[in-house]
Amino acid sequence: MPELRQEPITGNWVIIATERNKRPSDFPARHEERNGGTCPFCKGNEKLTPPEITAYREPGTHPDEPGWWIRVVPNKFPALDNNSADLAIRHNFYTGMNGTGAHEVIVESPEHDQSLEQHDPAQMREIFWAWRDRHRALMARAPIRYVQIFKNEGAIAGASLEHPHSQVIATPLIPTVIENELEGAKSFFVDRGTCPYCEMIAHEEAVGDRLIAGNKQFVAFCPYASRFPFEITILPRRHLADFSGLDDSMLEDLSVIVKVTMQKLTASLSRPPYNLTLHTAPAGFTEAPYYHWRLEILPRLTIMAGFEWGTGIYINPTSPESAAKYLRETAI
Amino acid sequence: MPELRQEPITGNWVIIATERNKRPSDFPARHEERNGGTCPFCKGNEKLTPPEITAYREPGTHPDEPGWWIRVVPNKFPALDNNSADLAIRHNFYTGMNGTGAHEVIVESPEHDQSLEQHDPAQMREIFWAWRDRHRALMARAPIRYVQIFKNEGAIAGASLEHPHSQVIATPLIPTVIENELEGAKSFFVDRGTCPYCEMIAHEEAVGDRLIAGNKQFVAFCPYASRFPFEITILPRRHLADFSGLDDSMLEDLSVIVKVTMQKLTASLSRPPYNLTLHTAPAGFTEAPYYHWRLEILPRLTIMAGFEWGTGIYINPTSPESAAKYLRETAI
Repeated sequence: MPELRQEPITGNWVIIATERNKRPSDFPARHEERNGGTCPFCKGNEKLTPPEITAYREPGTHPDEPGWWIRVVPNKFPALDNNSADLAIRHNFYTGMNGTGAHEVIVESPEHDQSLEQHDPAQMREIFWAWRDRHRALMARAPIRYVQIFKNEGAIAGASLEHPHSQVIATPLIPTVIENELEGAKSFFVDRGTCPYCEMIAHEEAVGDRLIAGNKQFVAFCPYASRFPFEITILPRRHLADFSGLDDSMLEDLSVIVKVTMQKLTASLSRPPYNLTLHTAPAGFTEAPYYHWRLEILPRLTIMAGFEWGTGIYINPTSPESAAKYLRETAI
Repeated sequence: MPELRQEPITGNWVIIATERNKRPSDFPARHEERNGGTCPFCKGNEKLTPPEITAYREPGTHPDEPGWWIRVVPNKFPALDNNSADLAIRHNFYTGMNGTGAHEVIVESPEHDQSLEQHDPAQMREIFWAWRDRHRALMARAPIRYVQIFKNEGAIAGASLEHPHSQVIATPLIPTVIENELEGAKSFFVDRGTCPYCEMIAHEEAVGDRLIAGNKQFVAFCPYASRFPFEITILPRRHLADFSGLDDSMLEDLSVIVKVTMQKLTASLSRPPYNLTLHTAPAGFTEAPYYHWRLEILPRLTIMAGFEWGTGIYINPTSPESAAKYLRETAI
């Protein structure tokens, strides 16, 4: 069983994935399964994954057989394990607990070579429908307190399989990144009486030079303090802390803005490696007047080095204003 | 002039290096200057760097000429600029300021192919002597509040030049990573009346299974909540918040433990890419009874992906206990 361990001074958590216990000879283990071999996520290869959790499939077809257009399966090498709800929290000088949670894969298409921005609008909507389904299902399960949905594209960004997919990891604790955001947002709210993300949208639209695209319910922009060249934030205009609270019309608009934004990014940088991450409210904070769910798109064009590790300060060689201008002006 | 910008909710800072303003066609910009070309850090090529700041050199030799064994020069493409002390802090919805500070390179040897663990003990001592010199000199300069010394080894770890060197970046603010450590350490001290790092050394020596090496004044171990396979912390046994406070006998022992530890790491993993970073007290905290300077060595064998960005939780496939056992048992 994997183990969750807390750094005693900063409170940051790590997962020690002991099952995979890698020895020195296992590194570098960056080989990809993309060339050669059989893709376990392709149509017809359903038996190569653990039994499916759920799938959107044609009537009359059966689980773990073709006929699906979105398929959710357990991760074969889970970072957190869902076979036990027992955390068995231990304290000595340090604090640790069982690596209880869940780790799932959302296969975004039966087609191997379809990247996110290439899906037709209906398929895009189905992907985010699956995100919402899994978010709701896992948030309802004890002892889960946070559900992280993310997507890695390209080997440099940590993708080990090429077939389009996103991943879901559910944790029994509130991650530090989210805890820090909640704390900062709450303190902004105490000072000014408004949600800082709602204010940010208003400010970005007033200034305009970091905007990329927008529609009725969403806005995409390069954040003021971008850590990475071409970093992108997508925020819903309506105040909503919890991704699970997304209604069907928002889901429709979300799929459109993600497609447009990713088309622009892909066209500007010729399919860059990237990570896409959801930030949303943890259990107990879903109605917070100061928090606001969002997507972050992080192109992996620069390398995190000693200065970043030591300080948390990122050096970004492309201003968000110039990145946004490129993206805004890129025809799709 | 580069610009420092603060994310309004988390308080994290970034440096927008506007001089280098990179356009889409500039990526991927990961080419290394190591193959071909003339190395600006090699003996005889002193004119290829900006004029030296200081050097340890033979009597009778002149600045920017051969005769040195350690040489400190300004970074040719500084992340922070030392031409102005004016921060010109600006607030609108966001907070930003001029990218004022310093960015220097410590050339660790006139020899191109000498990696850190290969230096003889005297040269190792001189390297840390230079670290201490530059730390003291820059901490004394207004408006500098923190001095980050670090080393990137290998292209994957962000090194753009192969010649052995470390870097120094001095910031006009306390970086979030250090602020969080100070806050956590202070709260530990308030609760228990002791420095958490002093307690950590006592705990690690009592348990023993994460220890790698030790000498009179230092201990090297794989931290309990290691984010990376073979992550290493080197802590001075004596309580000392500020790296500048290192006395000559500590400096001697430091150079020995770093050499031993790096020899073991290099032998175990055949010269892995890594980042080495100093964590030390910022201005105003040099006498803190709860903080303790240290070195972190972060081998870059795994890839940071969407889950890590979204949560701050790292997935580590090698337990620190098994990594420490390998390193402890690796003969050098």
